[in-house]
Amino acid sequence: IETKLPKVGTTIFSVMSQLAVQHKAVNLGQGFPDFEPPQALRDAVTRAMADGLNQYAPGIGTAALREQIASKTERLYGHKVSADSDITVTSGATEALFAAIAAVVRAGDEVIVFDPAYDSYEPAIELQGARAVHIPLTVPTFSIDWQRVRDAITPKTRMILINSPHNPSGAVLSAADLDELASIIRDTPIVVLSDEVYEHIVYDGAAHESVLRHPELAARSIVVSSFGKTYHCTGWKVGYAVAPAKLSAEFRKVHQYLTFCTFHPAQVAFAEFLASSPEHYLELPAFYQVKRDRFRKLLAPSRLKLLDVPGGYFQLVDYSAIRDEDDVAFCEWLVKEGGVAAIPLTPFYEKAPGTRLVRLCFAKSDATMEAAAERLCKL
Amino acid sequence: IETKLPKVGTTIFSVMSQLAVQHKAVNLGQGFPDFEPPQALRDAVTRAMADGLNQYAPGIGTAALREQIASKTERLYGHKVSADSDITVTSGATEALFAAIAAVVRAGDEVIVFDPAYDSYEPAIELQGARAVHIPLTVPTFSIDWQRVRDAITPKTRMILINSPHNPSGAVLSAADLDELASIIRDTPIVVLSDEVYEHIVYDGAAHESVLRHPELAARSIVVSSFGKTYHCTGWKVGYAVAPAKLSAEFRKVHQYLTFCTFHPAQVAFAEFLASSPEHYLELPAFYQVKRDRFRKLLAPSRLKLLDVPGGYFQLVDYSAIRDEDDVAFCEWLVKEGGVAAIPLTPFYEKAPGTRLVRLCFAKSDATMEAAAERLCKL
Ligand SMILES: CSCCC(=O)C(=O)O
Ligand SMILES: CSCCC(=O)C(=O)O
Repeated sequence: IETKLPKVGTTIFSVMSQLAVQHKAVNLGQGFPDFEPPQALRDAVTRAMADGLNQYAPGIGTAALREQIASKTERLYGHKVSADSDITVTSGATEALFAAIAAVVRAGDEVIVFDPAYDSYEPAIELQGARAVHIPLTVPTFSIDWQRVRDAITPKTRMILINSPHNPSGAVLSAADLDELASIIRDTPIVVLSDEVYEHIVYDGAAHESVLRHPELAARSIVVSSFGKTYHCTGWKVGYAVAPAKLSAEFRKVHQYLTFCTFHPAQVAFAEFLASSPEHYLELPAFYQVKRDRFRKLLAPSRLKLLDVPGGYFQLVDYSAIRDEDDVAFCEWLVKEGGVAAIPLTPFYEKAPGTRLVRLCFAKSDATMEAAAERLCKL
Repeated sequence: IETKLPKVGTTIFSVMSQLAVQHKAVNLGQGFPDFEPPQALRDAVTRAMADGLNQYAPGIGTAALREQIASKTERLYGHKVSADSDITVTSGATEALFAAIAAVVRAGDEVIVFDPAYDSYEPAIELQGARAVHIPLTVPTFSIDWQRVRDAITPKTRMILINSPHNPSGAVLSAADLDELASIIRDTPIVVLSDEVYEHIVYDGAAHESVLRHPELAARSIVVSSFGKTYHCTGWKVGYAVAPAKLSAEFRKVHQYLTFCTFHPAQVAFAEFLASSPEHYLELPAFYQVKRDRFRKLLAPSRLKLLDVPGGYFQLVDYSAIRDEDDVAFCEWLVKEGGVAAIPLTPFYEKAPGTRLVRLCFAKSDATMEAAAERLCKL
């Protein structure tokens, strides 16, 4: 069998997590918390199983959960959406991203992505017979040069895929960025796919500039988010997509044949928890800001140079004072010799820019951060 | 936005389940049990959550679950598979079917499917830019006319999709069928996708003829199964695919970007339960045979004609003595006027054959079966 995805190997996240286990390294690679989801949420899953909610959920998600998402969207972003027609619950944000691309992008189309780009985007685009057009973000701020976007647009451009807060850099888009985007696509048929899985993790008092705050963009966007990132349960695989009814209808056609529906008891649990504890996500920026600041302080004595982190739960560090090699080689060395798993940036680029940056996840307990910092400060 | 799936509406299962709720009908439509998964299995999910297994599982599935699947496959079908390279856990069988098709089938290819065909097959094929070639099963046995398959093969044929026990008819393939299939594809590059989600539900002492029993076929097949069907938890959405290492490698490339991984606590629970209670699936044929026979007895006084049910948990009934209309119209009438939701066969055909058959699910408690039978016997 000849491969349909010649450029794809095992995702770097799985590779690094395996190496972390193998070398007993502190795993700051793959992005997941090493602490637990709220007890009330786990109890609610157990209760839903006891209540007999173990058969198929509605394919688009339970009504109660969609209503909670709709009301949160209105509260936070001032954007009215219909739980019935505009929201679809998915088996994680990964499924939502794939379904969005499969629903909108056709063979021969072009999709603009910004490098470093999350590694699932391009294979999903290629499986449609379409092409990813890569625009590098400006280093070290990882901001978008909108003139490059204007220059990259062709009649074939079908979608622009943005991601804010950005993985791996933590960069966030501003309201001005969204205005630029809106003006660029105004007279085109381009759809925006907005990966906002870190929407609730923005620092220093800033507000997340969701595409859903921008009525013109919201009318032509599919916005993807994740309960796993917000509620410390990346292994529960519940995400969702918000899009206007017509786009949602196309999205749902694909979703219903991708996974049909998502683990039912967790949907019941999230609906309950969102209703009873809306403060949880409101407190998330403060919760993670403590971690970010603590992690940065722990690394201050090291020879790593720390980049700014406006959002998300990743810290980019420049290791050039420690070793003169590319980031993949550095991560291999680091997991084996330094006892810490990190994620290199090269796999997220079409053309690696040769930066000496790697990504460290700080969604970790104090003990994990301290163990990692002790090792990193020795380098 | 122009649709990529012009033939697709909301899946008939969702439509009928909604109508069932709306009209307070007994829901024998969408295929799910109205009883619960084993308590030990639910307890194991709760325990896994308490044990902190709430973050990403390995993308291919937990090692313990893959090992259980491998050992079951060897025990039941005498086929040795590697847990490391040949088994992938998915977010339900639906995801496995989609990933298999997306990994193997390319634009311009043809895929042979047998009508009535489960409704997710064709959209998955069409999204690859490929074409489903429909061969009707021979009514009323729903058997395959292998000469028609020989005649349908072209140089473009890339995959043959079989399904045994068959949904909706319950027909099962014999060892002779598998020999025919093997001989037809022997000198071709055709891959078999075998949907065996009802593998543990075969009646009257017959053994399920898995493709995995047939070494020649097993070497070129992707076999899909479902824990939801076997353990009465269709809403948990855990399935898997078994395929030789090279095919699995391609399958996994797609899977890792479709959903990445599956609800972690349930994987832990299934691994424990399979290890401690292998008798559960061994007792499943007897468990469902009691239901099948009870349901048939309850319907004996009705004017419905009952077809044979060799496997699965659906009963096909001929309603021509009751009403002279097509099956979609009959199901609409039945859910509104008769108080029972059923599934018509027409949506699973390219060219509906005009049979007067609808599908009733008997994975139901005695009370549900009796309530439905009371209504059906009045027609
Ligand atoms: C799906 S595994 C990768 C998790 C993640 O989002 C990341 O580490 O960036
Ligand atoms: C995924 S909903 C449909 C369930 C099913 O397999 C069926 O009813 O045939």
